[in-house]
Amino acid sequence: MTDPLDPVLSRIDADLPQALDRLSDLLRIPSISTDPAHTPDVEAAADWLVKDLTAMGFSARKDPTTGHPMVVATGGAEDGPHLLFYGHYDVQPVDPLHLWDRDPFDAQVQDTPRGKVIRARGASDDKGQLMTFLEACRAWLAEHGSLPVKLTFFLEGEEESGSPSLVPYMKQNAEQLKADVALICDTGMYDAETPAITTMLRGLLGEEITIHAADRDLHSGMFGGAAMNPARVLARISSDLHDDQGRVTVPGFYDDVPDLPADIRAQWAELGFDAEAFLGQVGLRLPAGEQDRSALEMIWARPTCEINGMISGYTGAGFKTVLPAQASAKISFRLVGQQDPHKLRESFRDFVRARVPADCRVEFAEHGASPASVMSTDHPAFEAARQALSAEWPKPAAFVGSGGSIPIAGYFKSILEMDSMLIGFAKEDDAIHSPNEKYDLDSFHRGIRSWARIIDAISKA
Amino acid sequence: MTDPLDPVLSRIDADLPQALDRLSDLLRIPSISTDPAHTPDVEAAADWLVKDLTAMGFSARKDPTTGHPMVVATGGAEDGPHLLFYGHYDVQPVDPLHLWDRDPFDAQVQDTPRGKVIRARGASDDKGQLMTFLEACRAWLAEHGSLPVKLTFFLEGEEESGSPSLVPYMKQNAEQLKADVALICDTGMYDAETPAITTMLRGLLGEEITIHAADRDLHSGMFGGAAMNPARVLARISSDLHDDQGRVTVPGFYDDVPDLPADIRAQWAELGFDAEAFLGQVGLRLPAGEQDRSALEMIWARPTCEINGMISGYTGAGFKTVLPAQASAKISFRLVGQQDPHKLRESFRDFVRARVPADCRVEFAEHGASPASVMSTDHPAFEAARQALSAEWPKPAAFVGSGGSIPIAGYFKSILEMDSMLIGFAKEDDAIHSPNEKYDLDSFHRGIRSWARIIDAISKA
Repeated sequence: MTDPLDPVLSRIDADLPQALDRLSDLLRIPSISTDPAHTPDVEAAADWLVKDLTAMGFSARKDPTTGHPMVVATGGAEDGPHLLFYGHYDVQPVDPLHLWDRDPFDAQVQDTPRGKVIRARGASDDKGQLMTFLEACRAWLAEHGSLPVKLTFFLEGEEESGSPSLVPYMKQNAEQLKADVALICDTGMYDAETPAITTMLRGLLGEEITIHAADRDLHSGMFGGAAMNPARVLARISSDLHDDQGRVTVPGFYDDVPDLPADIRAQWAELGFDAEAFLGQVGLRLPAGEQDRSALEMIWARPTCEINGMISGYTGAGFKTVLPAQASAKISFRLVGQQDPHKLRESFRDFVRARVPADCRVEFAEHGASPASVMSTDHPAFEAARQALSAEWPKPAAFVGSGGSIPIAGYFKSILEMDSMLIGFAKEDDAIHSPNEKYDLDSFHRGIRSWARIIDAISKA
Repeated sequence: MTDPLDPVLSRIDADLPQALDRLSDLLRIPSISTDPAHTPDVEAAADWLVKDLTAMGFSARKDPTTGHPMVVATGGAEDGPHLLFYGHYDVQPVDPLHLWDRDPFDAQVQDTPRGKVIRARGASDDKGQLMTFLEACRAWLAEHGSLPVKLTFFLEGEEESGSPSLVPYMKQNAEQLKADVALICDTGMYDAETPAITTMLRGLLGEEITIHAADRDLHSGMFGGAAMNPARVLARISSDLHDDQGRVTVPGFYDDVPDLPADIRAQWAELGFDAEAFLGQVGLRLPAGEQDRSALEMIWARPTCEINGMISGYTGAGFKTVLPAQASAKISFRLVGQQDPHKLRESFRDFVRARVPADCRVEFAEHGASPASVMSTDHPAFEAARQALSAEWPKPAAFVGSGGSIPIAGYFKSILEMDSMLIGFAKEDDAIHSPNEKYDLDSFHRGIRSWARIIDAISKA
């Protein structure tokens, strides 16, 4: 018996020109979600997807929200693993239009020194990525008349405008959306040859502190030396947040920070991350975090504390001998593992209060608190997907971390109690959100093949 | 033989209404030096003074400069101590005019709950103060036909517009202006009952430091933890500038800081300075400087380091998870004793450089460097003046310090190698530079009597 995957991959290769035509069709719809003038286009893109999914045999519908609609479709095997696939069909605005080499909504395949690309707004973010999955399903269905997994599609039209309807919709439709594992396609490769499954996303705790001293700005000649300077207090607090080894000193900060599992550590070591090149691209050289950690751990797996903004007194041109009445800083923490943002907020505030002298007072403001998303890679789908990806690309796939936050993964966990596999084929130079956005033909082609392999592998896992 | 001072004081009392008329005449000239429209008025005020000084028998002239003229006059005893008297005849603008109760240039004596005042722009700063000295000379001359000291008047018309001609004029006319001691009338009482001779003026060293890290602002999700944050570096440097006892930690900072002489310390103790009231007026309570010093020492006799301004990253509304490319602070030092601002600038910069990590660089900008002015109170004129003032006012006079800088005293020292006695009768509530400026009739009357006594005392010292 031949492997059922082989004919699917062959069909994907043969069908690539038609797949490109379909993607170009979708890219031609200027579904800019932030611009009310384009609301009919966002609707049209949703309709296009409903029609395409229906044509493939899925039960597809366009669900209204108070904003743009959700496209939801179900189908595939009755039993077998149940996957929820998430993507978005809206795109970023195209301004400044004059920086585009051509019409952003007239997709074209172009030759470049780095290979063929599909050039258009949304080519990479996220229509091209989204279509890799639909094309893989299409090939499966064309070859075998059925899919080896159960599927739910969940396609959003508001991702580029802050997803205002997402959480309410997910809460109202939790039963329908819940699956074994979610697939999120809105991410990228580790590098051009190495696919990645993002399994760790850092959380974020944002705080703003304002130290108040005198009830007005003072003249530093008259009061300097006698009146407490809140900038000095703020500097002391900010400085105390790290020790000499780059560790954050807030009590209990590392309590719920797990050590990197040995297998992940081994995978990361194989990535051959070049810290010098990574920092070199922005003019730096030396990893500044915890000195007993690798640079990759620092950005993917370790929590941080950063001053994002700081202001006090006179900051214009020249000089003023003012003794400021207040000083403030915006400080954020990237969180990992089981760190509890609410517990850490209190710990941070206690840390600050302990350093505010008797003559000053501190005011706090909240700017968000979300825990890290750490996927339980125990589910066999994870390892299956990793091996499937490794079979398709030049280099083996790795479970990687992401320094930033991808809210949808957190919502899937908190609302649907479901882990996510973040798998995408975008590359760093795709210019998403920028003029002349592109998606590599290689990303599109191998992306489709990758999903075909993943579906196959998960069905057997 | 009766004391020659007695009839002078009697004449001052008798002549007070006429003295007030003369002051009102001068106040009526709107000699606003910053406003080109008032240039003729500044000239008219200079002419008025030349005429008045000439009428008293002085050899007076109006010296042109590239800006407003200097009024210079000489006279008095051929031998005996030689005093240079400095004041200024220009005034501040009057905006906002609608906040004045009446015409700022129509001087009027008014009754207030705290006694009679002369209300007009320039009443206190500095025409009223300047005229106290002229009236004292007038009374001496009227009674005795001569003065017991040699006098040079040096009256400026650009004090309120930054004195652009002052230093060049002083350098060109150093020989003419040089005297034994300078008298500067542009200062105030310690309190309503206690006259003061300011003998210590703090110097000022201004520095701006900018810490550069990455060559652009970074996303704290992508780079947070790995890239050095310049705000963290700046906070560390700023925090390190003071130890827990409020002492400045820059190496060598206290090398040239003298201890307070015992006699000055005793005088200051008698002033009964109320630190709680001083700080309480701005909502503070606890002296924040060196914890082994009194609050009065902190502001008059001890050097300081203050952050006057600090900025980095995003400081607008809300939050941005930016990792800033740079962070900067404006830092000033108030200097005392023999502290050398140039030496300390280097010491401060070394201190900063030692705290800049390998991946950052620091940029420095200068914002002024002037040493403290410490008068040699050894000259007998100082003690003579102190006793003369003590005889006139309810409480004994003290040699005091001033936290701020009065540049003219520094110029007299550096250009004319002459110590200054800063003696004035302004009070804290005179509203100089503000609407409804006033000068107490008590300040004017006792001020004239004070100068008569000082002239007498110095002639005998």
